[in-house]
Amino acid sequence: MLALTILGNNSAIPAYGRNPTAQVLQTLDEAYLIDCGEGTQQQMTKYKIKRSRINNIFISHLHGDHYFGLIGLLTSMGLLGRSSDLHIYAPALLENIIQLQLDAASTILPYAIYFHALDKEGPIANDKKMWIECFRVKHRIDCWGFLFREKKNPRSIDPVKVKAYEVPAAYYEALQKGEDYTTKKGTIIRNEEVTVAAAAAKTYAYCADTIYDETLVEKVKAVDLLYHETTYLQDLHERAAARFHSTTAQAAEIAKRAGVKKLLIGHFSSKYELLDDFLTETCAIFPPTELATEGSCFIV
Amino acid sequence: MLALTILGNNSAIPAYGRNPTAQVLQTLDEAYLIDCGEGTQQQMTKYKIKRSRINNIFISHLHGDHYFGLIGLLTSMGLLGRSSDLHIYAPALLENIIQLQLDAASTILPYAIYFHALDKEGPIANDKKMWIECFRVKHRIDCWGFLFREKKNPRSIDPVKVKAYEVPAAYYEALQKGEDYTTKKGTIIRNEEVTVAAAAAKTYAYCADTIYDETLVEKVKAVDLLYHETTYLQDLHERAAARFHSTTAQAAEIAKRAGVKKLLIGHFSSKYELLDDFLTETCAIFPPTELATEGSCFIV
Repeated sequence: MLALTILGNNSAIPAYGRNPTAQVLQTLDEAYLIDCGEGTQQQMTKYKIKRSRINNIFISHLHGDHYFGLIGLLTSMGLLGRSSDLHIYAPALLENIIQLQLDAASTILPYAIYFHALDKEGPIANDKKMWIECFRVKHRIDCWGFLFREKKNPRSIDPVKVKAYEVPAAYYEALQKGEDYTTKKGTIIRNEEVTVAAAAAKTYAYCADTIYDETLVEKVKAVDLLYHETTYLQDLHERAAARFHSTTAQAAEIAKRAGVKKLLIGHFSSKYELLDDFLTETCAIFPPTELATEGSCFIV
Repeated sequence: MLALTILGNNSAIPAYGRNPTAQVLQTLDEAYLIDCGEGTQQQMTKYKIKRSRINNIFISHLHGDHYFGLIGLLTSMGLLGRSSDLHIYAPALLENIIQLQLDAASTILPYAIYFHALDKEGPIANDKKMWIECFRVKHRIDCWGFLFREKKNPRSIDPVKVKAYEVPAAYYEALQKGEDYTTKKGTIIRNEEVTVAAAAAKTYAYCADTIYDETLVEKVKAVDLLYHETTYLQDLHERAAARFHSTTAQAAEIAKRAGVKKLLIGHFSSKYELLDDFLTETCAIFPPTELATEGSCFIV
């Protein structure tokens, strides 16, 4: 199970109480921070996201509304006494920006930052529960999307059944991998008899800031949840293209062609106070769409 | 008249809904921004401070809780189409930090930034209504206080009286400077008869982050309003000294010895949820003290 919490959904200038982009994807063990606009640490406090659960931060690109909150978060983590390693995946220049600001404050963080500069598409991180890949998106500057793919859970042991069939504990690992069990008398106990299927592995794709780009269809094919920006309503498609952003109809088109289960839209321009039309226009083409409203949590 | 609005009053980590340091000092014409912690632009929106009125920004030092909100504000000013010059007074390194972040985003601002690196005590700015000086304060890194001194207003013409005495308009400027008027018949009309005294010029001193430092007494002598940090209550005076911060009693002592009219305290440590004791302890030594509560406006 994955749970995605929205901390910010606005583009460029904060407006109408909406904050710049930040999202937290959580499993039972980990929290992955995706982009980190100004005020993200305040939003984390508001929505009760524990800073200490975050070991991996993904920054899509170096426009300020996607990373100006990062240095404050890193500093606070230090002041709170963090000691565990932190991994940052971002365009290379960010490492200099962080270091220059730490140097200016004579700050030495009490934890290690491992900086992973994004330079080619493919796997970038891999922990106990998750595979993470990055892919290029088309924006005014170097910009990346991220694909989170839960690792396939092994089957779970049914504690009542293994006792009933007297399966020795030494065979549990093999059972979890799907093997059958043969008793001393030679009877074959089929795997399905003593194990339970685990929940399906889920996928989440985050497309950051992007112009309408059909090559995304293959990259986010059939994911359970797709986040695609909709900076503008469809009538401003020319402005969207000129600024390397997308519209409602364009995000819906990508979602539909990729056959994703659900679409989440955000990065709304500060020119819009109300967001209803974003949902109406997108749902007209791709009905299973939701607004990335701040504080909302989407279960994948 | 000066009006000081508090946008943030917390030290280091944002906590209990309190934001890092930022203040806006306003005259009828201008707004001067003093420090700019993360989230300052959101606070400006909340408390209806117009970004466009700010032409001068003063950054005391390069600890993040005093400037991490600056780059977001500068970027937003650009996105909002600002064209007028902006002056920034700050430690030299900040210029590189700003430029590196603008370069990373391929951003060229539509307005000019004039960067004034703070390197010696004395006058740093001077406009139609205000003299501004900086002075050194003692903190872990290079750190500066700021003294705002309104220019002495000329006397105001009394429109009824000048008409009654038939003073030609050409003499008004001389009257405002305090001169008497001699009629064609040789009668001397004393200045006080036809003009009104303007309000006294006011002074505000901002001491930034500082250890208890008696040399401040001379620097802020007899100002109308003094802001002095109180990161800790008095029982933690050893911790305060070790971290180059001050306590309630220490701020009160400086205010008392300097003979200021009013003391404002802030930069509260995130360890304190309630602030009542800050006021009680400080008022015990220097009664005309107020808490720098966010959103409060103090008329000097």
